[in-house]
Amino acid sequence: MRVAYLGPVGTFSEEALLAAAGKARIAAEPRASIFEAVSAVERGEVERAFVPFENSIEGSVRSTLDALAFDTTAVWIAGEYDHPIRHNLIARAPVELKQIEVVLSHPQATAQCARFVREHLPRAEIRAAASTGDAVRAVSESERPWAALGSSAAAEAYGCAVLERGVEDAAGNVTRFVWLAGGAAPRAREERGPWRTTLVFSELGDDHPGALVEALTEFADRGVNLTRIESRPLRRGLGRYLFFLDLEGSTADPVVVEAIEALRGKAETVRVLGSYPLELSGPP
Amino acid sequence: MRVAYLGPVGTFSEEALLAAAGKARIAAEPRASIFEAVSAVERGEVERAFVPFENSIEGSVRSTLDALAFDTTAVWIAGEYDHPIRHNLIARAPVELKQIEVVLSHPQATAQCARFVREHLPRAEIRAAASTGDAVRAVSESERPWAALGSSAAAEAYGCAVLERGVEDAAGNVTRFVWLAGGAAPRAREERGPWRTTLVFSELGDDHPGALVEALTEFADRGVNLTRIESRPLRRGLGRYLFFLDLEGSTADPVVVEAIEALRGKAETVRVLGSYPLELSGPP
Repeated sequence: MRVAYLGPVGTFSEEALLAAAGKARIAAEPRASIFEAVSAVERGEVERAFVPFENSIEGSVRSTLDALAFDTTAVWIAGEYDHPIRHNLIARAPVELKQIEVVLSHPQATAQCARFVREHLPRAEIRAAASTGDAVRAVSESERPWAALGSSAAAEAYGCAVLERGVEDAAGNVTRFVWLAGGAAPRAREERGPWRTTLVFSELGDDHPGALVEALTEFADRGVNLTRIESRPLRRGLGRYLFFLDLEGSTADPVVVEAIEALRGKAETVRVLGSYPLELSGPP
Repeated sequence: MRVAYLGPVGTFSEEALLAAAGKARIAAEPRASIFEAVSAVERGEVERAFVPFENSIEGSVRSTLDALAFDTTAVWIAGEYDHPIRHNLIARAPVELKQIEVVLSHPQATAQCARFVREHLPRAEIRAAASTGDAVRAVSESERPWAALGSSAAAEAYGCAVLERGVEDAAGNVTRFVWLAGGAAPRAREERGPWRTTLVFSELGDDHPGALVEALTEFADRGVNLTRIESRPLRRGLGRYLFFLDLEGSTADPVVVEAIEALRGKAETVRVLGSYPLELSGPP
């Protein structure tokens, strides 16, 4: 199975993909951006894409939400995988922290280590890289005392030294990845064990007080638990939004289907992004 | 009046601050990050901070939300200002687009121009800078054919050429900035013209179906219109959130106060971040 992910070699996405694949034989194919990984699965170049969806500190991965909501129409979420994230401070060779001039990483990683960087590297300049893998590659090539925030796999891949392990601000830093497949989300066939359903709906017809509340009530009244709500701008000026919802249960459950149908009567557009089991081993 | 903003000279924040200040005499003080601008007003180093809060394409500015929710306790929103954002492709000297090797900008600006960059600069490497001002400064110093995405004020400040104007993907790209003051949010004294109130509350006691809906119902039932809801992770593992709410009306209105008090009975913590008039001229 060919699987696209956010490359290059040594990113957390690659580390997580290898863990998620388990014993399955996959060909992991790096792409330069999340958008390109998602497009690859929509075009059928690969059978799956494996992309980060949400992090326990930084929140939703907007590139993924936006690729699903705005840039593609024939991609669905076939499964998810939670991967613990440990950031490390990495340099070409051992160096004292106070000598470090530049700290390089993906902005999401930098944000997850913001307190460590402020306290231990207050004088270092913070620069952004396209991915944690790119950051480690760049410091491996730099002759200056630069450091990167990245995975231990990346440190190994580029022959670098790990100066400090586990420099993330909060313990329990976990990223939820999703497996994407091409086509429209099929209705879930069976419902054994815990499932999740993710959908996106656009702003409600008018903004009378409580329009959003009314829409959400369709789920609450039927005992369907919403585990997450995330708004994204509709890109038509301030004050107009798309909402991403996660709910407990699958589209094999008539109650879930009924609530979604009721939502269709209230929202401008509703798209089910997928209904998938929470406990997966190997690719869906 | 001393006002801290996200520097350096030539950022959109500076451009917006000068527009928002109107005829008032202010001393605009650049800071290296949003966190530092917010901290400066909390410590009383400046009288106000002026920071981006939400963009019509990219959504909330997470650094601002997180600085308010996690890093400071004695800062409040005293006013807001909507500023139209026009991005430009900027280089040291005129150059053909196909020769550009690197496109440099703040990740939020890059995201707002993602389609333009994909279509017109497909081969250019995308690099991130700490701000749009920094990006323009860097290309002004580079001898390679690099380009930056930034404001025309920055192009002027660093003596650069504007290659293309208005390269943002969506027309009507607007950023909402907020004026921050030190201390706890005072209760609004009067209510003339449109006001907005912003608050943040942490997860509800238990996650029974509809807990969030029940909390929001306190506003809907009283006819208080919610204009925005944004979730941010509580940083204690996946699935636990803070919610930022914007509502129409001020804390001078007893109905708004009553709804907030009712929310306090349901949420773990509730903090009013501010109640402020929407139509301001000059600093609050």
